[in-house]
Amino acid sequence: MNNQTENQLLVIFGASGDLTFRKLIPALYDMFTRKLLPEYFCILGASRTSYTNEQFRAEQHNHLVDLKGEQADMDAFLQLLWYITMDTYLSADYNRLKEFIQSLQKQCQLPDNVMYYLATPPVMYEVIPALLAANGLNHPSGTDGWRRIVVEKPFGNSLESAQKLNKELGSIFNEKDIYRIDHYLGKETVQNILVLRFSNGIFEPLWNRHYIDSVEIVAFEELGVEKRGKYYEGAGALRDMTQNHLMELMAFTAMESPPVFEPEMLRNEIHKVFLSLQPLDEQQIDKQVLRGQYEGYRQEPDVAPDSVTETWVGMKFFIDNVRWSQVPFYLYTGKKMSRKLSEIYINFKSTPHVLFAGQCSGGSCNQLIIRIQPDEGISLRFGLKMPGGGFVVKRVSMDFRYSSLSSELLPDAYVRLLMDAMNGDSTLYPRSDALEASWKFIDPILTHWKEVGGEGLLFYPPGTDGPAERDRLWVPD
Amino acid sequence: MNNQTENQLLVIFGASGDLTFRKLIPALYDMFTRKLLPEYFCILGASRTSYTNEQFRAEQHNHLVDLKGEQADMDAFLQLLWYITMDTYLSADYNRLKEFIQSLQKQCQLPDNVMYYLATPPVMYEVIPALLAANGLNHPSGTDGWRRIVVEKPFGNSLESAQKLNKELGSIFNEKDIYRIDHYLGKETVQNILVLRFSNGIFEPLWNRHYIDSVEIVAFEELGVEKRGKYYEGAGALRDMTQNHLMELMAFTAMESPPVFEPEMLRNEIHKVFLSLQPLDEQQIDKQVLRGQYEGYRQEPDVAPDSVTETWVGMKFFIDNVRWSQVPFYLYTGKKMSRKLSEIYINFKSTPHVLFAGQCSGGSCNQLIIRIQPDEGISLRFGLKMPGGGFVVKRVSMDFRYSSLSSELLPDAYVRLLMDAMNGDSTLYPRSDALEASWKFIDPILTHWKEVGGEGLLFYPPGTDGPAERDRLWVPD
Repeated sequence: MNNQTENQLLVIFGASGDLTFRKLIPALYDMFTRKLLPEYFCILGASRTSYTNEQFRAEQHNHLVDLKGEQADMDAFLQLLWYITMDTYLSADYNRLKEFIQSLQKQCQLPDNVMYYLATPPVMYEVIPALLAANGLNHPSGTDGWRRIVVEKPFGNSLESAQKLNKELGSIFNEKDIYRIDHYLGKETVQNILVLRFSNGIFEPLWNRHYIDSVEIVAFEELGVEKRGKYYEGAGALRDMTQNHLMELMAFTAMESPPVFEPEMLRNEIHKVFLSLQPLDEQQIDKQVLRGQYEGYRQEPDVAPDSVTETWVGMKFFIDNVRWSQVPFYLYTGKKMSRKLSEIYINFKSTPHVLFAGQCSGGSCNQLIIRIQPDEGISLRFGLKMPGGGFVVKRVSMDFRYSSLSSELLPDAYVRLLMDAMNGDSTLYPRSDALEASWKFIDPILTHWKEVGGEGLLFYPPGTDGPAERDRLWVPD
Repeated sequence: MNNQTENQLLVIFGASGDLTFRKLIPALYDMFTRKLLPEYFCILGASRTSYTNEQFRAEQHNHLVDLKGEQADMDAFLQLLWYITMDTYLSADYNRLKEFIQSLQKQCQLPDNVMYYLATPPVMYEVIPALLAANGLNHPSGTDGWRRIVVEKPFGNSLESAQKLNKELGSIFNEKDIYRIDHYLGKETVQNILVLRFSNGIFEPLWNRHYIDSVEIVAFEELGVEKRGKYYEGAGALRDMTQNHLMELMAFTAMESPPVFEPEMLRNEIHKVFLSLQPLDEQQIDKQVLRGQYEGYRQEPDVAPDSVTETWVGMKFFIDNVRWSQVPFYLYTGKKMSRKLSEIYINFKSTPHVLFAGQCSGGSCNQLIIRIQPDEGISLRFGLKMPGGGFVVKRVSMDFRYSSLSSELLPDAYVRLLMDAMNGDSTLYPRSDALEASWKFIDPILTHWKEVGGEGLLFYPPGTDGPAERDRLWVPD
């Protein structure tokens, strides 16, 4: 990894919350043990919960003890943590924050580089940046240094709200200093889509409508809504998984090669994919965007007994450009599925002429599978002769597993994303224009569903792959 | 496997020899236990060694005891064996053979189908067929039935001798009834080249000069000449391995798809490859066909102390057709190499544009490896992102192993080839025109070497991959 991170202060809002102790602090500790943190670096937690520095450290320590590592490392890491109790709705408290930051910068020998991380409920995305700005915390105090802000998902819940949020954030921070987290993009296997496509002379020639029959992108969870009923009722699978994660995976799969591998060049290409999505009218939505709800969802805590929130989405759409014209893309996501997995299937066309009788049971022999999780890796299915007489062709699989590279676990997505934000590298962060283009495609679906209410909502038993009606998507027009 | 083999009698000439007990009888026993033999079937061994039927059975039994199988199976199989002591130079003995065949046909309830297998030294290929013909054994006695002949390698030792042999055999048997064994073509992994290429929509578009940089075909042996010095002195690596096995592998790799998968269609395409070989003039031979001899070869039994016989060949040539123009093909074979292996490497070109710095160390990320033996299988090398920050591309490998399909060993090459000959399927047998075209390409090399004597012969230490000078082949013109 690039070890040239600038010295900086990381301020985490929502420091007493779930995300902080489950993801951020463990990721930072991992970076610490891998020696990926800047030479001079401190972390300031901010939240309403009343903690001293020591109490905050002890609290984080409690959650870290399961991680491997030397006690000495752990002690040294905890010394990087600081805490400020504050009400993030109160402008006055931001003055105290400002003073704390200044004193920490001295104490930790830091230049005037500050990264804000909003590990808070989305409602705070409009509050905190405004109050940071009101207190002059959105720009360095002098001519040197920088301020960056990292925002968690969901980023808006409609085209309009996303546009509003972009506009507000954009008036407070430069676009290049705004980092919208999509943790899927922090996964090795997702980044690898780009490497697979663009560093291999054998894939690029095949990666288009001439040789690809269809693309499927799947993100299944085994769990249901658990204790997040309240959030989920206002979200649903389309907002929670499709608009962000699946659309990003789709864009990585479908994008053109950037002229050079630089953040804005890459983000330009992603933006172009979203701009090329064939819009869906209401009739197409009814036919091409199926939604389901698992049986028992309405009995979950904080869920309305007549809820029409979708916990499963299966959709088909097209990308109107030279590469993908008429190649259907399928996205599937759902809760309470038979298994947890995220995979991309590139289904190649059959040979134009069948030479061997019964070849791969009449279908195509070829499929490329990118396994994002679990068992991260790549498989290529191809036709092979069965041992014995004649020429009987069977589909077999050639596999690569990431675990074969090293016994170490792949770094968590947050390690990569934090690292990149700390380095000022926004390659793996969605840009505002792309985000809005994605919302523009998704928004009509939400609007239509709102109009028709529960009409067309399908139900499926937990532990399956979604409603039986899902195969309807595969019926050609 | 196809179990429709016609009832027939198999006559093996050279029945007391090595090939018979090492390969043919074990292959036939394997076919017996797999129930692949015809319902009515007998085997008649013919040789000068004096055996009774029982002695011949006992002798073959001795060599079979190591094979798995039920005693009852073994006993039943041995009952299929019969033996005639004869001098294959003596025309009169063929009359006795004729009578024996007729009585066996009655005893074994066989129609008038007879397959002759010449498991004899090559010098007999001109003697036995002629004497079979002289005694009316080259055609059925009535209007029904058939006569086929299987001939072992080497089939000629020059263009002229191969032509002569083809002409003579062709005057005695129909071309479609002549089976020239190349045991490489009986290997599952060799047949699989065809399936891999023609049943997979993803390989055909890449299988040409636009995407392939070069093709290498390698057949290495660890052993030296052992006790076969006498034969080898008159042969050398070019005749022993290159003209037949390597050229056939090359043709399978390079051929166009036949319009339908039928023997003559396939053989037409193989013939076309040989016709498209760019002929080598003397200067090209000096530059593009290297020969080597392992140190110590001249001290082997039956080898001349000043022998210039090559035990290693490395050569480069081109195929002048639309698919392969300007793509170099490299063939390598040698004795006393560092390891025993037969592999085909399809080296793909790099991406036209390098997006990731240092991508696969500046070379191409992509190579397809067809492992013919050992560890039969297929590997695809491709560039993948190394876990961690940035986008560091490393070449990794995706593997398929035949052993993953079944715990059973792959059938021996002879099983497949015998089976096919018994079925009248000549797909995997070289045809006379292709054989002559291959000789036409190889012959000038032998002629030139004969003219220049030992000039240019390289030497290499046993246990290496051949002469150090072999890299010269890779220097572009």
